[in-house]
Amino acid sequence: MKILGIDPGSRVTGYGIVNQNGNRLIHVDNGAIHTDCHKEFPLRLQKIYRALTEIIDEFRPDAVAVENIFFATNVQSALKLGQARGAAIVAGVNAGLPLFEYTALQVKQAVVGHGRASKDQVQKMIKVLLNLPEVAQEDASDALAVAVCHAHSAGLKDRLKAIR
Amino acid sequence: MKILGIDPGSRVTGYGIVNQNGNRLIHVDNGAIHTDCHKEFPLRLQKIYRALTEIIDEFRPDAVAVENIFFATNVQSALKLGQARGAAIVAGVNAGLPLFEYTALQVKQAVVGHGRASKDQVQKMIKVLLNLPEVAQEDASDALAVAVCHAHSAGLKDRLKAIR
Repeated sequence: MKILGIDPGSRVTGYGIVNQNGNRLIHVDNGAIHTDCHKEFPLRLQKIYRALTEIIDEFRPDAVAVENIFFATNVQSALKLGQARGAAIVAGVNAGLPLFEYTALQVKQAVVGHGRASKDQVQKMIKVLLNLPEVAQEDASDALAVAVCHAHSAGLKDRLKAIR
Repeated sequence: MKILGIDPGSRVTGYGIVNQNGNRLIHVDNGAIHTDCHKEFPLRLQKIYRALTEIIDEFRPDAVAVENIFFATNVQSALKLGQARGAAIVAGVNAGLPLFEYTALQVKQAVVGHGRASKDQVQKMIKVLLNLPEVAQEDASDALAVAVCHAHSAGLKDRLKAIR
């Protein structure tokens, strides 16, 4: 099962693709979609939508995983983040992919083993888990982390099914 | 020039279409897209995107106008509203339409004549201006208001061009 993790942001949207093969997780690709902050906001949202649609066309993932956000510094940043997230989610569902949401706590627990892990710890653990040559860009690493979280969660569901 | 006004919301997204014929404004259609709050949020965003894409396909507007939002009750509602707005905006730009944003102040000034107008006043004024048989549903009325605002603003720009 191939999973596309997305970490949406109005300036930078990270993405990461992992392939789950039984218990093995194989890194496929990761990167960051940068939007030009001098451009009008609707065009920046379109760039996020288009770039993700192209990534989905190229890698044909089976599922999309996105971090569920409950906090933001203020209403202004929440509005911007929300719009970027809306554009990203619509790209996923328009491609007909099932979409899964995980809280930051679930992602940290899945990757590091406890919910209080720092961003730095997550980045390093993602490098080790996915055998990356170097630490991935911050947003791309967060996207890989939510993909890994979904892989663990989906794997667990499969095992639970097998037991029943 | 046919203008599609949108008032995005995660529960209800209003839309309104007006045709600007010289100085005359003719009401074409208005309505509200309701999303099922029992459904998962990504599917609700997809409904907003799809419904607006269908409306654009049917009425073929020349431009889209959306109210620019700076305030929300709290971060939670800003995140939800932002996502709905992101889905709506991507529907517009993906259809290749130019997208214009207006503040609530600009919309009220264009419709009622001053920025402190109440929601009720805007609704009644939209009914009169567009010769509606009755007051439109609140979100649809807000969508018509932003379309009227764009018509006035676009008309003004044309007249300024003509003077120069």
